[in-house]
Amino acid sequence: MATKAIPVGYQGVPGAYSHMALLQYFQGQEVQAENFVLFEDVVQAVAEGKVRYGVLPIENSSTGGITDVYDLARRYSIFIVGEKILKIEHCLLAYPGTCLENITEVYSHPQGFSQCSLFFKEHPVMRQFNYFNTAKAAELVAEKKDPHMAAVAGVQAADQYGLEILARGINTNKSNYTRFIIISREQELVPEADKITLIVSLKHQPGSLYRLLAHFAQQNINMTNIESRPYPGRPWEYYFHMDITGHLTDPAVQEALQQLPEDTTECKILGNYPADHGKEA
Amino acid sequence: MATKAIPVGYQGVPGAYSHMALLQYFQGQEVQAENFVLFEDVVQAVAEGKVRYGVLPIENSSTGGITDVYDLARRYSIFIVGEKILKIEHCLLAYPGTCLENITEVYSHPQGFSQCSLFFKEHPVMRQFNYFNTAKAAELVAEKKDPHMAAVAGVQAADQYGLEILARGINTNKSNYTRFIIISREQELVPEADKITLIVSLKHQPGSLYRLLAHFAQQNINMTNIESRPYPGRPWEYYFHMDITGHLTDPAVQEALQQLPEDTTECKILGNYPADHGKEA
Repeated sequence: MATKAIPVGYQGVPGAYSHMALLQYFQGQEVQAENFVLFEDVVQAVAEGKVRYGVLPIENSSTGGITDVYDLARRYSIFIVGEKILKIEHCLLAYPGTCLENITEVYSHPQGFSQCSLFFKEHPVMRQFNYFNTAKAAELVAEKKDPHMAAVAGVQAADQYGLEILARGINTNKSNYTRFIIISREQELVPEADKITLIVSLKHQPGSLYRLLAHFAQQNINMTNIESRPYPGRPWEYYFHMDITGHLTDPAVQEALQQLPEDTTECKILGNYPADHGKEA
Repeated sequence: MATKAIPVGYQGVPGAYSHMALLQYFQGQEVQAENFVLFEDVVQAVAEGKVRYGVLPIENSSTGGITDVYDLARRYSIFIVGEKILKIEHCLLAYPGTCLENITEVYSHPQGFSQCSLFFKEHPVMRQFNYFNTAKAAELVAEKKDPHMAAVAGVQAADQYGLEILARGINTNKSNYTRFIIISREQELVPEADKITLIVSLKHQPGSLYRLLAHFAQQNINMTNIESRPYPGRPWEYYFHMDITGHLTDPAVQEALQQLPEDTTECKILGNYPADHGKEA
């Protein structure tokens, strides 16, 4: 009897880095990849049960946290059930036969441009146009067949849309990785889970972050990442998105989470899942 | 005898928010505002002494830290000598006589789009094109006179370029402020300085951030902002950009900065200056 393919959402079009991360994370399982225009569409589809999982970029090792995704994770009722780290190698792609010297318009995602800032400093004639996704930019360039147009996207997008690689590995930092999270409507807890993601809001008073970190340190819980994000509508107040090590059944973790310092106004456990310990697959 | 006007750099074109912040901060002084294309151009002009000061956005109260500016502040030899907070009210601007219904192409800075995400969700027909600066986008729209084009920029840009306001205050969050820093090649220390900005790098080991915060807390030094940024070339390692309260001549501040915890690998004092205590001028 055939098993039903698992529906998994991602943002962008086939050939996008998110699509690659999805295929690598679910390798060996039968999945039905569904693409969406916006990050929020993916989160919404997961929250409403239209897809079983969603794959979203959360952090790049050169440019930092993808703040829109942090903010969506806080606003929607979703959980993180896994992560996948992917090596990013941006290329300048154009219609076959195009010369690098003729390119004056480049399309990509803002993060793509940001990660290739040195390349664009050396090519000031290339105007940068913000586009939904690196792969969608490649699709646009393939459609237009314009000798002045190019896209910043991955090698896989060149294959997908029949484009030529005018310049390979144009990212400023050659050691460039993106970490993706796998989200679900249901919390999943496997015995090998070793990373916990939390959202913590603190009262706007001196020393509140220090007291929170002291609380975890006393239980020998290590924090591997902290990202401060603004509270919309409360200028200069912040909430924190934190990754700590451990399993929710560890007595130390339970103790720490049950008795948080008094100035913690909100603590939401976004997930407990196995960390991707390799820099890439 | 006439005093010579102080040359001050900003990014963008006349009518940009940075230009407004510059004029407000230096109110009452004779300044010669010089505009540059990139944030990095401003920082470079300051570092090389081509302008006396530079004005750069560092943080928005809705979308968070402006990460490129944080990274530039770390890479160049510059100091922060002041700050200015400005209320941001984005508008959709078009050539006079244009109808909102006909707009299909909108130009702005990525932060401008990000701050108006709800408006663009409600107007999915409007394609977003990344542009250097909100005011430069307004300038482009004024030049093109295209009935399908609009820009997201401030009221002052409408005045500057003779555009019509099709929609006012389209930012998702109505309580929207941007904090600008004033940079200089020389450190300046006035008696009323009450905010210190530091860049701190920590060894990649458990509890290092906790130990740093504990160190400041023991001296009753309050931290008002913390931003983690990736270390280029060292995946998943971070440095921290921190604002603390105090004056460099305070004994507690001196004590704290002279003996930092052992796992602090770098500590650079970016500046000590008077905080802008009003949300806006």
